[in-house]
Amino acid sequence: MSSAAASAKAAARKRFEDVYPIVRDQLLKQFKDHSMPQEAIDYYRRSLDYNVPGGKLNRGLSVVDTVEILKGRPLAQKEYTKAAVLGWAVEFLQAYFLVSDDIMDGSITRRGQPCWYRVEDVGLIAINDSLLLEGAIYQMVREHFKGDPCYLDLLEIFHEVSYNTEMGQLIDLLTAPEDKVDLNKFSLERHQKIVIYKTAIYSFYLPVALAMIMCGYPTTAPAGQPDVYKYAMDVLIPLGEYFQIQDDYLDYSGTPEQIGKIGTDIVDNKCSWCINTALALCSAEQRAILDTSYGRKDPAAEARVKEIFGQVGVDKRYEEYEQDAHDRITKLIKAVPEVSNPAGDAVLRHEVFTSFLNKIYKRTK
Amino acid sequence: MSSAAASAKAAARKRFEDVYPIVRDQLLKQFKDHSMPQEAIDYYRRSLDYNVPGGKLNRGLSVVDTVEILKGRPLAQKEYTKAAVLGWAVEFLQAYFLVSDDIMDGSITRRGQPCWYRVEDVGLIAINDSLLLEGAIYQMVREHFKGDPCYLDLLEIFHEVSYNTEMGQLIDLLTAPEDKVDLNKFSLERHQKIVIYKTAIYSFYLPVALAMIMCGYPTTAPAGQPDVYKYAMDVLIPLGEYFQIQDDYLDYSGTPEQIGKIGTDIVDNKCSWCINTALALCSAEQRAILDTSYGRKDPAAEARVKEIFGQVGVDKRYEEYEQDAHDRITKLIKAVPEVSNPAGDAVLRHEVFTSFLNKIYKRTK
Repeated sequence: MSSAAASAKAAARKRFEDVYPIVRDQLLKQFKDHSMPQEAIDYYRRSLDYNVPGGKLNRGLSVVDTVEILKGRPLAQKEYTKAAVLGWAVEFLQAYFLVSDDIMDGSITRRGQPCWYRVEDVGLIAINDSLLLEGAIYQMVREHFKGDPCYLDLLEIFHEVSYNTEMGQLIDLLTAPEDKVDLNKFSLERHQKIVIYKTAIYSFYLPVALAMIMCGYPTTAPAGQPDVYKYAMDVLIPLGEYFQIQDDYLDYSGTPEQIGKIGTDIVDNKCSWCINTALALCSAEQRAILDTSYGRKDPAAEARVKEIFGQVGVDKRYEEYEQDAHDRITKLIKAVPEVSNPAGDAVLRHEVFTSFLNKIYKRTK
Repeated sequence: MSSAAASAKAAARKRFEDVYPIVRDQLLKQFKDHSMPQEAIDYYRRSLDYNVPGGKLNRGLSVVDTVEILKGRPLAQKEYTKAAVLGWAVEFLQAYFLVSDDIMDGSITRRGQPCWYRVEDVGLIAINDSLLLEGAIYQMVREHFKGDPCYLDLLEIFHEVSYNTEMGQLIDLLTAPEDKVDLNKFSLERHQKIVIYKTAIYSFYLPVALAMIMCGYPTTAPAGQPDVYKYAMDVLIPLGEYFQIQDDYLDYSGTPEQIGKIGTDIVDNKCSWCINTALALCSAEQRAILDTSYGRKDPAAEARVKEIFGQVGVDKRYEEYEQDAHDRITKLIKAVPEVSNPAGDAVLRHEVFTSFLNKIYKRTK
């Protein structure tokens, strides 16, 4: 990235981050208006600041970026704030999932700090904190969108996408419990189902759909008009799947310097693309080793799994997958009709989707 | 209760219970439509059947009862089903709270069976199950109310009430952590705040407000008209508080034969009305004993606490409280304007509220 591009990116991030305290302070003001004890207000503030703003913010930024692309111009402050509130709502949704997933998975760290439930004086209160993070979404959306024509559609998409993600989390938990390895439950098909429901819908489809809803694209297509949400879904689900497969692959192949953490998918019995690919390719002997070595908290077992990944050619498969995914998604993007919204002040430009694809293609971190 | 009244009550319960399989099967059909694995469909069914229908169903039945009182006539099957769906939505909300609260509180049994998270092969998946129970509310409401004029109001009240309940759960968890006794945090004022937010709003206000919304009472009062939701709140919050104080008192004073369980509030460090009343009345010597004996898993310590409850006169205080609450709430009910809805086919009869009060007054179980 050129230094000009990097500083534009930093400025965009800064502008988005500046909306967070507005949202947080509105939530805290409600607590005060309900005469909650000061101890609860302080605790809630700590929970929000710990769990919401510290991530990469890709999902939240996608909402504002997409609104800008749809409108084809920079946003005025008022519409920027509204788009950013939706972006933060996605970040709240993410925080809600991460706080509760970390408890269910027994995870230790998140974003380079202890998982929230492992923080002193938090513990299992974190479950309720995650519920409050989800509840906050509807408070934020009401505060900024009540009375808008798109308000109901915004509520419904958050309901739908949250529910889908919980469905994905359920099949993941049933398929790959941390403490009970059974590779018979794994398959590339099951992996795809988990990835789509648990990750792709809320991480890729939701930000774009929110931007489209805010720009007035009707969620039920008028007769004779293309269903633009369906087109968006058809591109963004494979995109999200591609993103997660990269994530899975980098967990196995990336160095800690690259990915900023040590990959633990193998020892954690994760239903990752790598193990599912290996299962599809391995011999009976290799399978026997995978059965006894996968999901064990033992470096030697992990090394045996990695050796088999190497033997069956997971790396080559990944290269092929990546090229195929890129070409397939490019074709899907070309098929999207670049239609205007009813008001005629937004266009569903292909750039909405190519901007995602370009950010992801051949990433190594 | 006369045997005729008892059999009418059983019939009403049966009619309500008959709607549950409809709701459940719609939820399971969605899972099938999303091509979820059969294992996940079976698991979800088991979670729903275990957690939703086995309670007293008072909250759910209140919704249908209230719609019938408002309309002043028995309900036709179609409108009955819609009212019952809202009733079940309240029962789902209750299940959502109970499943997650039991994990946070480390509870052992619920409704005479092990808490869901303690069931074999469930464990912490129960956290995600509770999220699905909440998500199911919006699926049910959409399925039966999308397109209705009251749809948005229904969504908003579920958001609002869920959030309020999570606020109440937070202050309860901060005030009375199971493992860290600090009676300085307790007070009758704090107790009231917890009870209102954690219990009264969703158990008493929500069912009535849902019935009023379904009957077309506008949530924003037209100019010059009384705010009927405010009146309902003004009666139902003290009613809910009264109900919870009874619950607290029965936990201490009721026999297992009466209340169907062994009271554990004292050993569990619960911020109950009894301890807060004792704290307000006790001497310095008694306070020292309470400080060292409350919230201990030790029958001798529990007996010392009960002795002090006796010494300071908790029973007499309760009698006085009950009489005062009854009289106060009766006056509040009389102040409610018995107004019609805009369509003129429903009246906010005092019976809506007196029926609750009569069910509760001087209950011993």
